[in-house]
Amino acid sequence: MDGEQGAGQVVERYGHGGDSWTAGELFQREVGDFIDFSANINPLGPPAEVLQVLRELVTEMGVPGIARYPDPASRALRKALAQKYDVAEESLLIGNGAAELIDGVTRYVQPRKVGVTAPAFIEYEASARKEKAEVVYLAAGEKEDFLPKRELLLEWINSVDLAWLGHPNNPTGLFLPLSLLEAAAEEAAEAGTVLVVDEAFLDFIPDGEEKSLLPRLKEYPTTVLLRSMTKFYALPGLRLGWGVAQPELVKEIAALQVPWSVNGLAQRAGEVALANPAFEKDTWAWLQEERVFLKDGLVHLPFIEWVLGEVNYLLIKLKNLPATETSPSRWLQRKMGQRGILLRDASGYPGLGDSYVRVAVRSREENECLLTQLQGVWMEVREGLEVREETESQKGGRI
Amino acid sequence: MDGEQGAGQVVERYGHGGDSWTAGELFQREVGDFIDFSANINPLGPPAEVLQVLRELVTEMGVPGIARYPDPASRALRKALAQKYDVAEESLLIGNGAAELIDGVTRYVQPRKVGVTAPAFIEYEASARKEKAEVVYLAAGEKEDFLPKRELLLEWINSVDLAWLGHPNNPTGLFLPLSLLEAAAEEAAEAGTVLVVDEAFLDFIPDGEEKSLLPRLKEYPTTVLLRSMTKFYALPGLRLGWGVAQPELVKEIAALQVPWSVNGLAQRAGEVALANPAFEKDTWAWLQEERVFLKDGLVHLPFIEWVLGEVNYLLIKLKNLPATETSPSRWLQRKMGQRGILLRDASGYPGLGDSYVRVAVRSREENECLLTQLQGVWMEVREGLEVREETESQKGGRI
Repeated sequence: MDGEQGAGQVVERYGHGGDSWTAGELFQREVGDFIDFSANINPLGPPAEVLQVLRELVTEMGVPGIARYPDPASRALRKALAQKYDVAEESLLIGNGAAELIDGVTRYVQPRKVGVTAPAFIEYEASARKEKAEVVYLAAGEKEDFLPKRELLLEWINSVDLAWLGHPNNPTGLFLPLSLLEAAAEEAAEAGTVLVVDEAFLDFIPDGEEKSLLPRLKEYPTTVLLRSMTKFYALPGLRLGWGVAQPELVKEIAALQVPWSVNGLAQRAGEVALANPAFEKDTWAWLQEERVFLKDGLVHLPFIEWVLGEVNYLLIKLKNLPATETSPSRWLQRKMGQRGILLRDASGYPGLGDSYVRVAVRSREENECLLTQLQGVWMEVREGLEVREETESQKGGRI
Repeated sequence: MDGEQGAGQVVERYGHGGDSWTAGELFQREVGDFIDFSANINPLGPPAEVLQVLRELVTEMGVPGIARYPDPASRALRKALAQKYDVAEESLLIGNGAAELIDGVTRYVQPRKVGVTAPAFIEYEASARKEKAEVVYLAAGEKEDFLPKRELLLEWINSVDLAWLGHPNNPTGLFLPLSLLEAAAEEAAEAGTVLVVDEAFLDFIPDGEEKSLLPRLKEYPTTVLLRSMTKFYALPGLRLGWGVAQPELVKEIAALQVPWSVNGLAQRAGEVALANPAFEKDTWAWLQEERVFLKDGLVHLPFIEWVLGEVNYLLIKLKNLPATETSPSRWLQRKMGQRGILLRDASGYPGLGDSYVRVAVRSREENECLLTQLQGVWMEVREGLEVREETESQKGGRI
């Protein structure tokens, strides 16, 4: 029994990493019995202050706890965001995770054609399909150095009703040049295309805000900016995302949201999380060190061709792995899953092939564990290869 | 300063009761400084076991807590519901509150015409408007004894793509005869109309399950049944609702949901809440006594014409209140809001006039407080009337 995966029985059967429930079923382990490198969550979080306020909320039955409806307008959180990011409150959208806002924007636009880069976060495409829109890919794979060509990008924006750009992109972890983003936003305004710039991971680096389109967003009336609080503050279980756009756009998108979609605990957690500059600095310091450490360890493994990524996750290209019935990425994911480590098989991303995986950067101890286990898998491969080579030479087989 | 409300400055500006945030702004009080009779939440909850498990989730960072993505398929909660209600797991929908499922069903049907009774919970209509559908009302107001006529009901189901029935209805608190519901579901199946039976408050009475359409739902392939865990288990801050339908329908509606829409704490809270028969019995015993007590107290007030309701909220018709610039219901709501008590002004419900308010049944102490404060408002009115009468007789005015 090797925990073999049947057709469709993949860890990403619900479309994403971080699904320890499905992994538990497939690799015959407890849900909690994994180190999860498949979801890009800050290992330093949630901040202690957030856990403290949540503890208070679940002991007293008071405001704004469990037994009271959440503020339907997330007023306190909106105010805190407006202050921290110097944005007008009426320009802010709050969502049940950024995922709700992705669906919300798409539903608002009612697009016939939706532009997504290949590769990109798959929810852009998934939300387009819910609206039965046609998806128009913009190639930004290995051949393009994972950077869409300027001319093609502008043409592409012109050719769709709604376009998505990840900044940094997921799963590549690469930022777009700010000048390219600005050109895209300007083109979108002229063409009447709604452009969404997804900055869900931008806060992971100290100079993130300098790379952000946020300060100049007012100049681009058809551009929507998305952010997440789920990743940086490690609140994926609670769900929390936000967005910025012109007030008229915000009003129309918000009108499509489910009432009370942002639960009361998430609102309060978000408010407390924002008032925490020490947590930001700790996160930036951790990541600066650990990304380098992990990258270094990874590129020296003999089955890794290269490693990319400027934020808290790394895209890896595999090589030299044995040919199997499944893809190399799926094979490696299973081997590691059986060892209690979850990787994101990135072969499902349009524009990537079957030799890509994505890993989050985690704590030193966890990163070391990842490297050790990858080394262990490689030893298995070597032995297997040697055994096979021996067998073949005994048979007088070909090299 | 009387906390006067400007145009549009109403407590229900986001469409619902239970908005202590808006009430706090309007009546110049702290958010927590109200007894909330405007939302229909069980005052006995949340169950102690639920708070206990939530406390554990926010102390350890483990599974399935804050720092891990929620199960995208709510598997454990689905399993618990399937067992308790004897339903197949693949027939269950789990939602970020029943509100998400209301939107989800409407979005799935993509209706041209949506049937709602007048009065009914306003989200049915709101979700229809999001899809730009035409709303077809079925009269079920005071003239109809708040019960839609059978023949008209069946005709109405035939004339729309999607129809909504509250069982019990909100804000009337009245159940439909089960035979009428079954006839409606049968008609819906024949006509190809999707019928949604909203049983969000049915669990508040001990014989609720006997009144439910659930046991016979399999016979009605186009009928969807909705339930809520927010009201009975007092978890509105966390959000949790569920629905039952044929597996094919469930699959298509679920495919439209936002990924991870049901947060991890809500899933776990729901699972624990279900395994709590003592809480059910306590709630049923409390409500049986308090509904009678509160109804009795209310009908003896000289400005209340009648009181209706079979579950945990009561619809009240007002009389004898002074004519004011605003409606009697809005006037009473403001007077009570200033006294720290929130009522639901029910005048906004299509099919009701401006003399209706809705109140939740709460604890004995709170119900007594409600009655005392209503009496206090009446005293004010009496004094005002007497002052006016004296003034008028001094002027030799008419009686």
